[in-house]
Amino acid sequence: MSEAQVDQRRKDGTLRHLLTLEHLSRAEIERLLNKAQSFVRPLGAPPPTSNTLAGVTVANLFTEPSTRTRVSFELAAKRLGADVVNLEVQLSSRVKGESMLDTVYTLQSLHVDVMVIRDAEAGVPALVAGNVAPHVSVLSAGEAHVSHPTQGLLDALTVRQHKKRFEGLAIAIVGDIRHSRVARSSFHAFRTLGVADLRIVAPAVLMPEEPEFEGCSRHTSLAAGLKDVDVVMMLRIQKERMGQADLPDADRYFVQYGLTPERLSLARPDAIVMHPQPMNRGIEIASDVADGRQSVIRDQVRNGVAVRMAVLADVIGSRSSAT
Amino acid sequence: MSEAQVDQRRKDGTLRHLLTLEHLSRAEIERLLNKAQSFVRPLGAPPPTSNTLAGVTVANLFTEPSTRTRVSFELAAKRLGADVVNLEVQLSSRVKGESMLDTVYTLQSLHVDVMVIRDAEAGVPALVAGNVAPHVSVLSAGEAHVSHPTQGLLDALTVRQHKKRFEGLAIAIVGDIRHSRVARSSFHAFRTLGVADLRIVAPAVLMPEEPEFEGCSRHTSLAAGLKDVDVVMMLRIQKERMGQADLPDADRYFVQYGLTPERLSLARPDAIVMHPQPMNRGIEIASDVADGRQSVIRDQVRNGVAVRMAVLADVIGSRSSAT
Amino acid sequence: MSEAQVDQRRKDGTLRHLLTLEHLSRAEIERLLNKAQSFVRPLGAPPPTSNTLAGVTVANLFTEPSTRTRVSFELAAKRLGADVVNLEVQLSSRVKGESMLDTVYTLQSLHVDVMVIRDAEAGVPALVAGNVAPHVSVLSAGEAHVSHPTQGLLDALTVRQHKKRFEGLAIAIVGDIRHSRVARSSFHAFRTLGVADLRIVAPAVLMPEEPEFEGCSRHTSLAAGLKDVDVVMMLRIQKERMGQADLPDADRYFVQYGLTPERLSLARPDAIVMHPQPMNRGIEIASDVADGRQSVIRDQVRNGVAVRMAVLADVIGSRSSAT
Repeated sequence: MSEAQVDQRRKDGTLRHLLTLEHLSRAEIERLLNKAQSFVRPLGAPPPTSNTLAGVTVANLFTEPSTRTRVSFELAAKRLGADVVNLEVQLSSRVKGESMLDTVYTLQSLHVDVMVIRDAEAGVPALVAGNVAPHVSVLSAGEAHVSHPTQGLLDALTVRQHKKRFEGLAIAIVGDIRHSRVARSSFHAFRTLGVADLRIVAPAVLMPEEPEFEGCSRHTSLAAGLKDVDVVMMLRIQKERMGQADLPDADRYFVQYGLTPERLSLARPDAIVMHPQPMNRGIEIASDVADGRQSVIRDQVRNGVAVRMAVLADVIGSRSSAT
Repeated sequence: MSEAQVDQRRKDGTLRHLLTLEHLSRAEIERLLNKAQSFVRPLGAPPPTSNTLAGVTVANLFTEPSTRTRVSFELAAKRLGADVVNLEVQLSSRVKGESMLDTVYTLQSLHVDVMVIRDAEAGVPALVAGNVAPHVSVLSAGEAHVSHPTQGLLDALTVRQHKKRFEGLAIAIVGDIRHSRVARSSFHAFRTLGVADLRIVAPAVLMPEEPEFEGCSRHTSLAAGLKDVDVVMMLRIQKERMGQADLPDADRYFVQYGLTPERLSLARPDAIVMHPQPMNRGIEIASDVADGRQSVIRDQVRNGVAVRMAVLADVIGSRSSAT
Repeated sequence: MSEAQVDQRRKDGTLRHLLTLEHLSRAEIERLLNKAQSFVRPLGAPPPTSNTLAGVTVANLFTEPSTRTRVSFELAAKRLGADVVNLEVQLSSRVKGESMLDTVYTLQSLHVDVMVIRDAEAGVPALVAGNVAPHVSVLSAGEAHVSHPTQGLLDALTVRQHKKRFEGLAIAIVGDIRHSRVARSSFHAFRTLGVADLRIVAPAVLMPEEPEFEGCSRHTSLAAGLKDVDVVMMLRIQKERMGQADLPDADRYFVQYGLTPERLSLARPDAIVMHPQPMNRGIEIASDVADGRQSVIRDQVRNGVAVRMAVLADVIGSRSSAT
């Protein structure tokens, strides 16, 4: 089995896998955002449906199947006419290496076209992508702390809907940056799309090592980090980390890093508030803010299914010519 | 979030949610029964299918997904052309209140149109219904001890098929009335439909407090309760309650309250026997009766999927004009 | 309830259930193989889809739902246009007898047409088949150590694709024959199809009692068993059995019974290697062989979904005239 770095593109340059946003060009990301935007409908309107993926089979390989992200991918695939199967599997190279790939080969032999992989250990999605047949695409639905590319795309789409541009924006990502795949993927999206003033805000122990998040300003003070930003992106803090390793407990975390209406007033008056969910209300974000006028958190969810439709349609739609 | 009592109807009077049968009119219940009857097919005939719910998404939110009721709702939705997703979630206001609603808002943002909720604690289905967007419907698939409206409807439909009327009927509900959502919903259906002689039969400790089941005669003697009834509706007894709290153990329960052929002979000769399942054979019902000539238990199951199709078609079909 | 031996055929001779290959004729097996072959597509080509099973409902009743076999049956049914529901249930006659049948009757009343049963204790699939209504078919997806008929068919199909014939072939089945439903079903298929030289190879403690596998030669030496065979069919060894009951531990098992390239060279140069998966690489089979030129293991998986489509189409397609 090959463990080499996987190119997400086919030889003709079309997108085959989506494992990370790190090496996508601005044009590629914008193409996906445009396609996703075409799938967005207002709340209450029927979602778009089509037969674009008729005859295509999508397998969701999730460690824990009852997640919002699984449902989002499942509905995205079904609304494009695909057959969907859900499997609860733990893909890990550590324990069983080749037998993990046997599972993958089995799905491939069952004519599965797209494997959506969640919560595999770091490197596993690339390992799978490097070993499947040419017609199979692998989509990451969240890889360890490394990447969560569809989340990065939906965050970018949400910003674009509200701010109409990326240049000239100031965006603060706040919370456990160090362990966050969401922060990494959103950072890659924002940077590639031309956001100049990108900030990460975290207690020292949750700050990533340099040179990760290159070009971001780093703040341990929330007040400094939020000053005049256009977008505040809060992250979920893992309660298990609370009170350990120099990290304040939940109450003190909220005092220092929780997003309250007062703190939000340091940002621009038209700043939007984002959160990947699930939220710890009263820990990283006050309910007044989560449910407030500036919150676009539910837009993010709606955009999530649109982004997943776009990615599915893109990798499958560009397949026929290339393989 | 609003905790006010939820009106199940839209402003134009059409049915939006189904959480309880308690406040439905006779005309409303009969409309649902008529629609359900149109979906009934004999065993062995293909079930009716249509595209009534094409483009509609139904989410089953069940604490425990492997239940007959989940399969019944899933098949009802699929046969009407809906997309269905199953989630294993515990909806509880006690532990996490607003974060429960975040789950609900997420599903709503994913363009879920109907949320089918099972085994939430009392009050949760109404709390959800009171907070979702106007185009979303909430259907209870069993709420604590409070209500199980589609079961009440299928019981009424089963009685109507066999007895052709409700007036003049005598119906006995037998077993753990106190803790039974089935008993409550069937009671509401039967009373609203005009059943005059409604009886509840239970040991004293399983009898509900007054004034619940108003208008029912109460019997601790099974013989008295069954005398000349047209319908015997047995309930499942929770084995965990056996031998506790003044309740006889399983053997003694069967002696006192088990439905045997001899006891059934106290009812009218053409009386029908119902049970919501799963049955404890040999505890609340003898196998001779469960599988006997007068049993209509399998009809209940068949009617269940028809009732769920009717309710889904009704709440969605009346939506377009109203929202 | 009837516990009598179940005839898998309808009165008109068409196939209604598939519980075992034991009593099928060569013509019946060949008809299923021909139909399955028509559903085979090369890797990368879209799988065949049709509306053959439109309006038909298939229920997968699996003890453990996350298995390759469940996904294979699910995709087979969906690609023929059926509605599919998955249930995680333990069907056991020992504990609850009639209440197991109540579950079955419930599914039948929900208009389930095909019940696919996995991992029930021995005899349960036949018990279910003996009690369902005439229009319902029961398919075994693996019954204790007794039988796994679709695996037997896919093994036969794989041999036929590569060897073009059954007469004159030498086939060795190697491993834990005693506890293997795969070995039993493949043995029945191969014998009925006319394979003359059938061999079973196992340590003495894993050898089945006589007169099972009648007509097979028995070998405790792997070298003798493999000599000049056309097909080597390896079985999965349960690691739990290792080191117990006179069975060698994993390392010694590999030394004595593991299929290495050297051992494989004892077979014919064009011999094919099969394995039902999941494989214990390094225990019963070396990775060099599993991934080698002679391995047809992935063909088996691809043939599996084709065989399941064939069986579903056969039992349902022949139903209308017969019931």
